[in-house]
Amino acid sequence: MLTVIAQDFIKLEHLDDVLPLYAELVRKTREEPLCLSYNLHIDQRDPGHFVFIETWPDKAALDLHCQTEHFTSLVPKIDSYQRQPGIVSLLEAFTETASQDTH
Amino acid sequence: MLTVIAQDFIKLEHLDDVLPLYAELVRKTREEPLCLSYNLHIDQRDPGHFVFIETWPDKAALDLHCQTEHFTSLVPKIDSYQRQPGIVSLLEAFTETASQDTH
Repeated sequence: MLTVIAQDFIKLEHLDDVLPLYAELVRKTREEPLCLSYNLHIDQRDPGHFVFIETWPDKAALDLHCQTEHFTSLVPKIDSYQRQPGIVSLLEAFTETASQDTH
Repeated sequence: MLTVIAQDFIKLEHLDDVLPLYAELVRKTREEPLCLSYNLHIDQRDPGHFVFIETWPDKAALDLHCQTEHFTSLVPKIDSYQRQPGIVSLLEAFTETASQDTH
């Protein structure tokens, strides 16, 4: 399983512009058959810092997500309100890695 | 519910030093009665970038976690191998915030 953390940093004067875009992105992504989980959060200390925590079966499923109509139409709109580039981290579970290290 | 993302950046030459410390921290934290989830991940593109995804009932539960014997003994040891300061983000669910905005 692949865990993804995707962080966006939005200009504070454009929060009202991005909220409906995020809502639609979350709703449509959760309808994707390969989406295991897709949860958006907001940093308590920075209302322009949006954090997705996502799980996908594998990288191929994530790549398919990034090619969907909703992703390719909504994400550029959201990104137009960014104050700095987003950060996407692809993560593997620590326990799996640790056990691999002992083999 | 409070979601926490805590990111550590460890010197690559000290991965073998931190792995058992992380394993102990995860094991003992999961035994805390107020811990809802506590999952450690490693960045696929940076083996020294460790990412905790945690959920707690509230900030008081997180504060209690930070006062436990295992936290106060293990985290300073882990931090001694950092290459840059860690980042801790306290997050709330987007849906809760969005619904509050409409009230």
